[in-house]
Amino acid sequence: MSESNVNRVYRLSARPTARVGREHFKREDELLSPLKDGEVRVKTLYLSLDPTHRIWMTDRPQYMPPVALGEIMRGLGVGVVTESKSGVLKEGDHVMGLLGWQTLGTLKGEGLMKVPELGLPVTDWLGPLGMTACTAYFGLMDIGQPKPGETVVVSAAAGAVGSVACQIAKLMGCYVVGVTGGAEKCAIVRGQFGAGATVDYKRGNLSEQLRQAAPKGIDVYFENVGGELFEAVLQQLNLYARIVFCGRISGYNLAEPAPGPKNFDQILMKRAKLQGFIIMDYQARMQEAVAALAQWRKEGKLRTLETIVDGFDHMVDALNMLFDGGNTGKLMVRI
Amino acid sequence: MSESNVNRVYRLSARPTARVGREHFKREDELLSPLKDGEVRVKTLYLSLDPTHRIWMTDRPQYMPPVALGEIMRGLGVGVVTESKSGVLKEGDHVMGLLGWQTLGTLKGEGLMKVPELGLPVTDWLGPLGMTACTAYFGLMDIGQPKPGETVVVSAAAGAVGSVACQIAKLMGCYVVGVTGGAEKCAIVRGQFGAGATVDYKRGNLSEQLRQAAPKGIDVYFENVGGELFEAVLQQLNLYARIVFCGRISGYNLAEPAPGPKNFDQILMKRAKLQGFIIMDYQARMQEAVAALAQWRKEGKLRTLETIVDGFDHMVDALNMLFDGGNTGKLMVRI
Repeated sequence: MSESNVNRVYRLSARPTARVGREHFKREDELLSPLKDGEVRVKTLYLSLDPTHRIWMTDRPQYMPPVALGEIMRGLGVGVVTESKSGVLKEGDHVMGLLGWQTLGTLKGEGLMKVPELGLPVTDWLGPLGMTACTAYFGLMDIGQPKPGETVVVSAAAGAVGSVACQIAKLMGCYVVGVTGGAEKCAIVRGQFGAGATVDYKRGNLSEQLRQAAPKGIDVYFENVGGELFEAVLQQLNLYARIVFCGRISGYNLAEPAPGPKNFDQILMKRAKLQGFIIMDYQARMQEAVAALAQWRKEGKLRTLETIVDGFDHMVDALNMLFDGGNTGKLMVRI
Repeated sequence: MSESNVNRVYRLSARPTARVGREHFKREDELLSPLKDGEVRVKTLYLSLDPTHRIWMTDRPQYMPPVALGEIMRGLGVGVVTESKSGVLKEGDHVMGLLGWQTLGTLKGEGLMKVPELGLPVTDWLGPLGMTACTAYFGLMDIGQPKPGETVVVSAAAGAVGSVACQIAKLMGCYVVGVTGGAEKCAIVRGQFGAGATVDYKRGNLSEQLRQAAPKGIDVYFENVGGELFEAVLQQLNLYARIVFCGRISGYNLAEPAPGPKNFDQILMKRAKLQGFIIMDYQARMQEAVAALAQWRKEGKLRTLETIVDGFDHMVDALNMLFDGGNTGKLMVRI
């Protein structure tokens, strides 16, 4: 069989209860069938690695159906249309969407977004204009509602969501504290992403570090990680603080969901608001975020870093980098 | 010394780490001093017993300063002015406010609210027009934002806050599920306070009871209790649910604040909002709540039940009734 009629896939074959391994997937080379009406064939160029993959692999109650056993692993990516029976896309179009962990997917045309020609690299649509950036945008603007002069603490500040959240908070006139791991990432978060101070979670003593980094207390917290950091933040909230509940990566590899914070009562004492959100709820308003992000990007106000892993064979290793702090900025695999 | 120049008081003498007892207070009879400018003497008629007393007795970080050791125990009450050197109150005025656990307090006139003459019993200002009712009003209307047809679950539904929250939710066109303890209280919550169904926490199996009582899932939860009920509620939230975080009485007698719920992740998965609030933040808008409540009261749409304990000597026993489920409706002590 020739390269052009084979689709290489990862199908979910077992549900992890701890760290993800190759044993949780079945790799197959599958022969392509002819397209049906409405379908397109998409050659995957880059796949995005995101913490939410780990949620989809469980069968816990979650915000989308879990990936079924035997199903192609779900994942965002950018690619190019190689063949089309869809009225909305034609051969040569670049697209972004849930391409899945496969090299040559057969997908419904209307489920994909055609990437507009803005003179920006195609990888931007997984990075500073992609889902993670829109997550930062809506989470911060809609739920965090930062006001000039307020202190905004962003966890996983060197990551795809956090790095954009830091920069938007800074653009809104806030004092930004970024939490990340290691001196090198801290320097990047301060130097590239606009943080006035950083907390290095690998150095321990989070409460004291946080107190020094955010001496006026915390008005907005962008929550990506959970665990001890979340408890330290709760203890230092200002009145009427807003917590953008975006994720809790520190608990994703646990067999059971991580429990709530020990000092949960502080949400009441500080009359804080904690609100969960998922970017797919903002589908109808996505253009609003993309327009703002693209404008900042063109004006040089929105920086991005990428960690690109080469090769479809390394999807699982790449995924684990998210949980090991192995990436800086947007993590993706070049196919 | 004559009765008229003695003030009987409870001063906080030790901080409880479990159940409150008489050993945590020092009872004294104190001679009155002459009033200073701006002060009034208030004869206490009724004192309100509220779960928040238990928070004030600890020195944990909280929404007001804790009651200091040696200080007169803080508490809301209604009373009558017996002497005034205040420009805003005169002898004979009925007042409501933080009178404290004392029989003849010396207080600043501007710290008290003069009870308007509406032809309603003075105890209404601790009950259906008082702080607990305003708590129910603002918590439900501002944070819960119930829409007609939605399911609203109210915990401690036979209590002072819960009984009013149930009735307002019903007035807003919602399906109301009240959670309380025992068949008798359940019958009252259904018969008097407008609940379409009840959950009896003393019967156990909260999840299954809740599933039957709220078959369409939960849109608004009025949280007064914490613990297992909160976890059962989180598991049955509808998308975009609102949680009014008013209190957590099940944890108040613990030495450490009760931890957050095990299934905290459901707040994210259901994109729910959890917001803490304290009624004193609504001081400037209090008339809005009182006007609405008084109107409903006069129209016979707002029912109230009271549990009145007789005698200043029984303050501590009365307080513990809150934690034992010993009261139905507003609990107060007649002095």
